[in-house]
Amino acid sequence: MKDAKRPEVIRPSARAADALREIRLTRDYTRHAEGSVLVEFGDTKVLCNASVEAGVPRWLRGKNQGWVTAEYGMLPRATHSRSGREASHGKQGGRTLEIQRLIGRSLRAAVNLKKLGEFTITVDCDVIQADGGTRTASITGGCVALVDAIRHLQREKLIKSDPFQQLVSAISVGIYKGVPVVDLDYPEDSKADTDLNVVMTEGGGLIEVQGTAEANAFDRAELNAMLDLAETAGARLFEHQREALGIRG
Amino acid sequence: MKDAKRPEVIRPSARAADALREIRLTRDYTRHAEGSVLVEFGDTKVLCNASVEAGVPRWLRGKNQGWVTAEYGMLPRATHSRSGREASHGKQGGRTLEIQRLIGRSLRAAVNLKKLGEFTITVDCDVIQADGGTRTASITGGCVALVDAIRHLQREKLIKSDPFQQLVSAISVGIYKGVPVVDLDYPEDSKADTDLNVVMTEGGGLIEVQGTAEANAFDRAELNAMLDLAETAGARLFEHQREALGIRG
Amino acid sequence: MKDAKRPEVIRPSARAADALREIRLTRDYTRHAEGSVLVEFGDTKVLCNASVEAGVPRWLRGKNQGWVTAEYGMLPRATHSRSGREASHGKQGGRTLEIQRLIGRSLRAAVNLKKLGEFTITVDCDVIQADGGTRTASITGGCVALVDAIRHLQREKLIKSDPFQQLVSAISVGIYKGVPVVDLDYPEDSKADTDLNVVMTEGGGLIEVQGTAEANAFDRAELNAMLDLAETAGARLFEHQREALGIRG
Amino acid sequence: MKDAKRPEVIRPSARAADALREIRLTRDYTRHAEGSVLVEFGDTKVLCNASVEAGVPRWLRGKNQGWVTAEYGMLPRATHSRSGREASHGKQGGRTLEIQRLIGRSLRAAVNLKKLGEFTITVDCDVIQADGGTRTASITGGCVALVDAIRHLQREKLIKSDPFQQLVSAISVGIYKGVPVVDLDYPEDSKADTDLNVVMTEGGGLIEVQGTAEANAFDRAELNAMLDLAETAGARLFEHQREALGIRG
Amino acid sequence: MKDAKRPEVIRPSARAADALREIRLTRDYTRHAEGSVLVEFGDTKVLCNASVEAGVPRWLRGKNQGWVTAEYGMLPRATHSRSGREASHGKQGGRTLEIQRLIGRSLRAAVNLKKLGEFTITVDCDVIQADGGTRTASITGGCVALVDAIRHLQREKLIKSDPFQQLVSAISVGIYKGVPVVDLDYPEDSKADTDLNVVMTEGGGLIEVQGTAEANAFDRAELNAMLDLAETAGARLFEHQREALGIRG
Amino acid sequence: MKDAKRPEVIRPSARAADALREIRLTRDYTRHAEGSVLVEFGDTKVLCNASVEAGVPRWLRGKNQGWVTAEYGMLPRATHSRSGREASHGKQGGRTLEIQRLIGRSLRAAVNLKKLGEFTITVDCDVIQADGGTRTASITGGCVALVDAIRHLQREKLIKSDPFQQLVSAISVGIYKGVPVVDLDYPEDSKADTDLNVVMTEGGGLIEVQGTAEANAFDRAELNAMLDLAETAGARLFEHQREALGIRG
Repeated sequence: MKDAKRPEVIRPSARAADALREIRLTRDYTRHAEGSVLVEFGDTKVLCNASVEAGVPRWLRGKNQGWVTAEYGMLPRATHSRSGREASHGKQGGRTLEIQRLIGRSLRAAVNLKKLGEFTITVDCDVIQADGGTRTASITGGCVALVDAIRHLQREKLIKSDPFQQLVSAISVGIYKGVPVVDLDYPEDSKADTDLNVVMTEGGGLIEVQGTAEANAFDRAELNAMLDLAETAGARLFEHQREALGIRG
Repeated sequence: MKDAKRPEVIRPSARAADALREIRLTRDYTRHAEGSVLVEFGDTKVLCNASVEAGVPRWLRGKNQGWVTAEYGMLPRATHSRSGREASHGKQGGRTLEIQRLIGRSLRAAVNLKKLGEFTITVDCDVIQADGGTRTASITGGCVALVDAIRHLQREKLIKSDPFQQLVSAISVGIYKGVPVVDLDYPEDSKADTDLNVVMTEGGGLIEVQGTAEANAFDRAELNAMLDLAETAGARLFEHQREALGIRG
Repeated sequence: MKDAKRPEVIRPSARAADALREIRLTRDYTRHAEGSVLVEFGDTKVLCNASVEAGVPRWLRGKNQGWVTAEYGMLPRATHSRSGREASHGKQGGRTLEIQRLIGRSLRAAVNLKKLGEFTITVDCDVIQADGGTRTASITGGCVALVDAIRHLQREKLIKSDPFQQLVSAISVGIYKGVPVVDLDYPEDSKADTDLNVVMTEGGGLIEVQGTAEANAFDRAELNAMLDLAETAGARLFEHQREALGIRG
Repeated sequence: MKDAKRPEVIRPSARAADALREIRLTRDYTRHAEGSVLVEFGDTKVLCNASVEAGVPRWLRGKNQGWVTAEYGMLPRATHSRSGREASHGKQGGRTLEIQRLIGRSLRAAVNLKKLGEFTITVDCDVIQADGGTRTASITGGCVALVDAIRHLQREKLIKSDPFQQLVSAISVGIYKGVPVVDLDYPEDSKADTDLNVVMTEGGGLIEVQGTAEANAFDRAELNAMLDLAETAGARLFEHQREALGIRG
Repeated sequence: MKDAKRPEVIRPSARAADALREIRLTRDYTRHAEGSVLVEFGDTKVLCNASVEAGVPRWLRGKNQGWVTAEYGMLPRATHSRSGREASHGKQGGRTLEIQRLIGRSLRAAVNLKKLGEFTITVDCDVIQADGGTRTASITGGCVALVDAIRHLQREKLIKSDPFQQLVSAISVGIYKGVPVVDLDYPEDSKADTDLNVVMTEGGGLIEVQGTAEANAFDRAELNAMLDLAETAGARLFEHQREALGIRG
Repeated sequence: MKDAKRPEVIRPSARAADALREIRLTRDYTRHAEGSVLVEFGDTKVLCNASVEAGVPRWLRGKNQGWVTAEYGMLPRATHSRSGREASHGKQGGRTLEIQRLIGRSLRAAVNLKKLGEFTITVDCDVIQADGGTRTASITGGCVALVDAIRHLQREKLIKSDPFQQLVSAISVGIYKGVPVVDLDYPEDSKADTDLNVVMTEGGGLIEVQGTAEANAFDRAELNAMLDLAETAGARLFEHQREALGIRG
């Protein structure tokens, strides 16, 4: 592992190793969803719509709790070359299912399901344009949409107590040409040795850590360097979320 | 059929019977597709991405011509209440297939497939927000994206002659509370007696005419009144397309 | 558009421009269905079976009304070359879904769903042999089967009032070698410039108008000429239906 | 097992224990297929269309032989109550697959695949009306359609030697109220203790024997009594096939 | 048909014509299922797990009876060359469905469904290693697992009377190089002229007889010779089952 | 986080916090696969069959390299209550796809794909009995099967150089009642606060790190404690693998 501070490593985007891309969270992006957020991590753009529905899945009925789940999709031409439409192929691919399971687990950490009552909130994360980091953008933006959906339930007096527990955000970190870097865009992601997605809580806790060695195995020191970068990035992401939501930090 | 000029019929939007919603065509909306247009008919917003791929479907191989096709989808929360994700259900519904077949047939009228050479242009029309008229917006916006994709092929010198033939646009007309009206939004569409989608060429020709009596049958006079409205609307849509594309009328 | 009366245009079948093929409606073609009609438009043969079932689809429950729907299929060798069996492919194609949606909408115009009560009538239209016009034959024959199914409900005293509203029939018209012609068979259909399917009520009303320009756009005059042909044809189709059903005109 | 000759057992159809229903084989029933036979075993009516296609399945390529296969389907209202359309359910049921595998294996016994050359003959057996014995009718009628398809290949001089080997026919036998009976119709079939389908060659050989005890096990004596009935029935079926085909016995 | 006693026919396994492979029935093979049996017919190894679930399929509700069903699967590399995983292909093949229907029908003969009460027992037969005869091994082993599941219901006092009726076992017989042989392994099975699967009851009754001529038709004498072999084999299989279950014969 | 050394925490299995279950690797478990290993982590039993096939997936053709992939499945009654058969449901669930993607990525780290040549090795991991840790057992056992498949290719002289790079093993660690523990069985896994799966190389490198907070977020100290446990466990797993393969450490 090289030293991230060393100046000669130039990321394709010319960003510093610890620099995030421009982050934007636009609430009320569409008008029907109870929470609707366009999240942008640079050129990665994901529309996160949180929908409230009365009732819970069959296996939760009568347990006096709610449910939060997520679905993920990519528009066919969100990527460099067109990928087939999953609806037309007749099934969601493994990558899609893996990502939407990750988003769902992550967002459930933001909510006290007991206090949610028998409501289901589904957060649809649809990638309009992809440039690396779509799953971490989805979690970060999806959490804001989820909060808006919870606020809707409260405003409509459909629930009494507040099920919101904590903000959740996510970032990718990796080892690019031997240097730990944060928020990889596609040119970096496709060449990185290691790719680590980290989902965090405002309190500094870890919700999910998913690291994959693409070419060579990584060691504990590299893992720690990546987690340090993720921690710093997380602080900034929570600021963005709080600002978007008008929450004082 | 009542007289469209009679003042007492008030459309939910307060528009005049022959008034279109605000039409917007934003080119280069995403960065990967060879043609990428966000089309807005009021609150109906559809992202139309035209993708160029070398080769043609198996049944056209060796026939020395190209192909233009379309796919249509709705984001799950483009509508008032969330509809299931087709990729998750494992198939595209009948309405989706019917619409994408209509869009494909319509857009092929814009192109000389012989001159296109062995390329396939797929126009993905994904509805970001629905408020009536998604199929007509898709055709109108998809045609602009298609032209951009053709221009890309020419710029890259992949084709020699110009396969572009003519602009194609589409509009919905209907009978609402007995009065023929143009460009129905969702509140009108859901209560209209008759719904007619008209696909037109710049030269005044008809490509597709699809009329459905929702409650009561319609007669030839009503059909003609609706077609008159569509003709007038078509002229304005072609202006919007030409303006977006920088073509002199 | 040429003059339909001009003698030199010879249809492949040598029919006059306004001549239907031989129409036959054979009731009680199979013995299990509540209504079972073999409809023949020349060599196009479709078996239309109307089945009565108690209950309505989930989304209509408790609304105190019935439902009429249709399904369409082609036997694999109904056509010149064998087409794959949809059951084996695992899904119905877009054309099939588009056609069965059209048949269902058309047949619902024949029935007062409120008076039908909580029954569902499914009209299965299975093409035994195809020679153009299978969807219009299906509607025309399916309507007769539907009436028989309604009569069954009345005979069995399962409903009190009569939900039958009006006969519905359908015909294809087109522009073949510049001349408007009615009831296109396959050789014409595959070469026609324009293809228009018209669904009509006995009272002269229009239920569905679906016109498609195959090669060149059509104009309002051509559309009107085709609709004139359809109107005349409709009158004859209603006679066939009334005769088959033993209804006085 | 009771004695089949005892007069007091009355089959629902009043037929004698060894009496077949009326058998009809109508060739050239539809006009597109190379072989098209409507087979009727009483009220059971199956349309058997044999289609010739150049080429063989991938796993037979280069082996210098042909292939014969079958597909089976039931129109949704071929039966007393409507059964769902398999194309709409997205898959063929186990019963359908089991039957079409049986038909395919049986018909291959009629043909020398080496002499067929690299052609595939697909025999589609679609049940128009069901009253028991659809699989045996399919085999018996399908064999005639298959012979017609082979004759077509010879007439068109697409093959040189004659791949036809022998006629194949099939019949159901069973134990009904303790008595062995032949050619069970639906009222018998649904109450029979044992159901045995027998596929035979003209030379008296057995191709398939599929016996199932519905309620009580059967013994060797009963099996032999049923096979005796099948053998006698087979002789008559081969006569029907030869007569239909104009072959001297 | 040659004489099975003639010494010169040497089976690939060097077994005598009437010799079974080594049969092993290992109960309690896995720990979760109410009945879990590994059945081995030589190198053919099938894990048969019987699972008890409260309730019956929808179409049996309220009929005051239970249900016994089976599912069959092959691990992808149970065979010489890897076959695709059916779960990944998205459907069970025709052979799989045919076999699991056979197993289910056969095992239902072992049980009085009325006495079972509203419980469903599903017997999963998963082939760990295949060497011919997987369906007959599945029935023979599945029956032992089924008895264990019934004993579980009795031990847990979930049912009062004993629904067990009789043991059921199955064996394959065939004509190999002109000689009737029993319990065919894969090298024999793949070259046999005729293949017959016989499902029997302890009392000597026949439940299922499924014979297929692979190359040449077989005659009644051959069928009888094969059934004789099956009968003898059945007696030994029932001994194995009784011994495994600790039942006195 | 409590101190793992503190004696009062009693795991359901009474194991020490750093104690693995009994690990067994049985090679040549079935006879057809090129590598066939039954791996047991206590009561978790997974059959890992590695199959060699000539050729590579379409997207790798002509790149002069091989491919290693994995498929994962659970027998329906591998678990406490029966879960539906994925082949019958018509698709693999998200959990299955996520696990088989993880196994595939992990095993590819063991192999130099360039040296493998144009062969595909598919490792099928089928869970015979589940008691927690099926994915880590699959990787650990699958790696041994993979080595056997590579040795087969070498023995058969199908490849010249040795594509084997390094052993790969995997273990689950977690926080159970506040204490970091290794190799969680089902009773622990279902109640653990955090679950971390770690895939390692012999050289001490990390291939995959997948941590999930089930109830409460975890912190860096807990993550490190878990990784320490995984590292120690890894050393023992590599010993087991080397011993099974007869490799000197």
